[in-house]
Amino acid sequence: MTKYYLTLLEEKNYAELKEKLIHENPVDIASLFEKIENPEQYLKLFRLLPKNVAAEAFAYLETDSRKNLIDAMTDKELSYILNDLFLDDCVDLVEEMPANVVTRLMKNADQQTRALINRFLKYPEDSAGSVMTIEFVSLRPTMTIQQAFNHIRQTGVDKETIYTCYVTENRILEGFITVKDMLLSNPEDLIGSKMNTHVISVGTLDDKEHIAKLVSKYDIMSLPVVDNEGRLVGIVTFDDAMDVLQEENTEDFVKMALVAPDNETYLRISVIGHAKRRILWLMILMLSATITGLLITYFENELMFGGSLILVSFIPMLMDTGGNCGSQSSTLIIRGMALDEIKSSDFLKVWSKEVRIALTVGVALAIVNAFRILIQYRGTEHIGLIALTVGLAMIITILISKSLGCILPMFAKKTGLDPAIMAAPLITTITDAASIFFYVMLARYLLKG
Amino acid sequence: MTKYYLTLLEEKNYAELKEKLIHENPVDIASLFEKIENPEQYLKLFRLLPKNVAAEAFAYLETDSRKNLIDAMTDKELSYILNDLFLDDCVDLVEEMPANVVTRLMKNADQQTRALINRFLKYPEDSAGSVMTIEFVSLRPTMTIQQAFNHIRQTGVDKETIYTCYVTENRILEGFITVKDMLLSNPEDLIGSKMNTHVISVGTLDDKEHIAKLVSKYDIMSLPVVDNEGRLVGIVTFDDAMDVLQEENTEDFVKMALVAPDNETYLRISVIGHAKRRILWLMILMLSATITGLLITYFENELMFGGSLILVSFIPMLMDTGGNCGSQSSTLIIRGMALDEIKSSDFLKVWSKEVRIALTVGVALAIVNAFRILIQYRGTEHIGLIALTVGLAMIITILISKSLGCILPMFAKKTGLDPAIMAAPLITTITDAASIFFYVMLARYLLKG
Repeated sequence: MTKYYLTLLEEKNYAELKEKLIHENPVDIASLFEKIENPEQYLKLFRLLPKNVAAEAFAYLETDSRKNLIDAMTDKELSYILNDLFLDDCVDLVEEMPANVVTRLMKNADQQTRALINRFLKYPEDSAGSVMTIEFVSLRPTMTIQQAFNHIRQTGVDKETIYTCYVTENRILEGFITVKDMLLSNPEDLIGSKMNTHVISVGTLDDKEHIAKLVSKYDIMSLPVVDNEGRLVGIVTFDDAMDVLQEENTEDFVKMALVAPDNETYLRISVIGHAKRRILWLMILMLSATITGLLITYFENELMFGGSLILVSFIPMLMDTGGNCGSQSSTLIIRGMALDEIKSSDFLKVWSKEVRIALTVGVALAIVNAFRILIQYRGTEHIGLIALTVGLAMIITILISKSLGCILPMFAKKTGLDPAIMAAPLITTITDAASIFFYVMLARYLLKG
Repeated sequence: MTKYYLTLLEEKNYAELKEKLIHENPVDIASLFEKIENPEQYLKLFRLLPKNVAAEAFAYLETDSRKNLIDAMTDKELSYILNDLFLDDCVDLVEEMPANVVTRLMKNADQQTRALINRFLKYPEDSAGSVMTIEFVSLRPTMTIQQAFNHIRQTGVDKETIYTCYVTENRILEGFITVKDMLLSNPEDLIGSKMNTHVISVGTLDDKEHIAKLVSKYDIMSLPVVDNEGRLVGIVTFDDAMDVLQEENTEDFVKMALVAPDNETYLRISVIGHAKRRILWLMILMLSATITGLLITYFENELMFGGSLILVSFIPMLMDTGGNCGSQSSTLIIRGMALDEIKSSDFLKVWSKEVRIALTVGVALAIVNAFRILIQYRGTEHIGLIALTVGLAMIITILISKSLGCILPMFAKKTGLDPAIMAAPLITTITDAASIFFYVMLARYLLKG
């Protein structure tokens, strides 16, 4: 389909293309823009779209495409788009464009939009204020259902949702009523008598992740945002909440892999950009691994047991198993906390669970490993004691890594840090050193003969 | 609040509790149930709720609480709940209960519900059929807007959403119309002339993750599900889509940490349950690490350079850095593919990017590390060559781990495997062996004097 449209565009068969595009979803039209390689065709395609579709498709474009398109548009076209976009999309646009484009945007927005954009830009990143929209339906408690429907008919076209209407008096949020409730009520009933006054609302400065979770928890279509005085200033709709949840999940994924989060997609970030977001933690952990190295040289007499590297050869296995165990625990606990399934007050319950899991898993792995060693090195001197040493070291390593995997993220959460950075790589580095230390101590004691 | 309610329940102050509960959200009432410790109070609390609230709160309960409650209820109460629940919740209930409870459930459902449940149980897990609901509003194209509103008024109370109505003829899906469109139309207009015929729909067997992504991509409130003949059989609503997205994210998180996914929460899974879902991969990777160990004993002459363990002491650093680099790449790429930002066809673009990132990061780390070694071991013989060996091994390790971090997940996706299991731990194990092999080869060549 996309290919066919691009061919039509290439062949300048605008009449047919225009006809076809009428039936397409703005989201798909936006993806069509992303496929265009010749920048001159951007504007051509854009001008074929019905005006309202053009504005909606524009809202779904990637940053680069938006910039290209704005650069090519006339001021009049730009002004139309700006005044037709929902305010939250307008603010996103201003936030992501370079300064010279912003100047042109602000010049072409009408005065009211300009004032609103400026107000929105003051809300902190990640706050409810930064993701809310102001296009909601507001009703008065003294209206009848019939009057309310008329009000919706007159003003509803430009609202992001009409299905949950908010009831205000002197702009103070008093309650809400859904269109479903209204349809099922008598036209003469008063809004005030039919509205639901148990309304869940959030403040403009509340964290957007918290809001997205509320939307998901209560299965609601939109959540009202109020200022300090309880005045309704905006709403967050379910689709924006879904986007926030996905963004937060992505942030957790990359932070847990010790990559600095970035709103751009993988392919759009340059090589240097990628290197920058990855190198800091790599450097820190590489230098921390020096400690493990120092332990190895410090205890080289113990490690060169019988003049061979047999004891050293088990180090990678201990390190990897410790890393994997820590990764399992920390991931389960970080995710559990993100979903509010695990709370800070559950700490002792979680830790004691991890210790018991560590013992179960550790003993099982140690036994399997001991068999492997006894078979592989049968006939080697002291191999029984070596297998015992490695087995005990394995159990201790797993105990340490699983304990750290629950203590560090829960401690981070408690102290207001982001639990996600207390993930596998950090735990691995700490476990490595501890693991080798206990391994050497066991070797010294058990293999001293 | 919760505490106060529990005290009222404890003190048998049922009148006041009942009064208070009227104003609470069913989601919060469900959390109240989870806090009750004395099973006898389950039913007491349940009986204080208005009937419709009771059914809704029931839908939000955890499996254990549902079971406790069902065990305590009379058949009449159970029958009421079953017939008031939305069908998708009913099916979930049947799926999660033990056999004896299911028998009782089926006995108390009315005949129609029983037949529907049986049909739904046949849809494969993770399919659209398994998450859809059948409570949607269906209109005929020959109805007027006015007639359609009357139809909604008569039937809408029990529908999961009324805001997007589906237009069918002989049960074939023809289009959709929103209540907003209807409110803005003339009451005499025909549905057929006002409906939107470009409707995005999915099949009953389509993957639920795909569906959730469609809902999120197109910002729609509900997505129709059709059978092979194009007949409308159900809808998936945005709130269920949000739940699916969160579940899929959780699955990816835990799979990437090599834990078998489980729908239960962390705290509800027993120690043995946790051990079971973690031990398989730990065992596999522990035994795979034997290869790295074998390399160390095989090359022990090269590694005991100058009779000391100085070369061995850099192994943990090389292993950890390789693991961390692989984890960064694989996480970014697995997540990029999950969000459809990276496609299989981008393979060469992604790989070449990872190679260039690896070189940038690798050279930087190697230089910093060389300085560290030269300072720490100043005066040691051949230390310049050792620093060079470690530096080159570091660059090679990073190249391998970042390459594997993109090749393995993308290859998995291409062949229909789950990319999430090609994550950090697996890559670490492979990189370890390769890293030590190249390290030894470099040492053999550069340090042979």
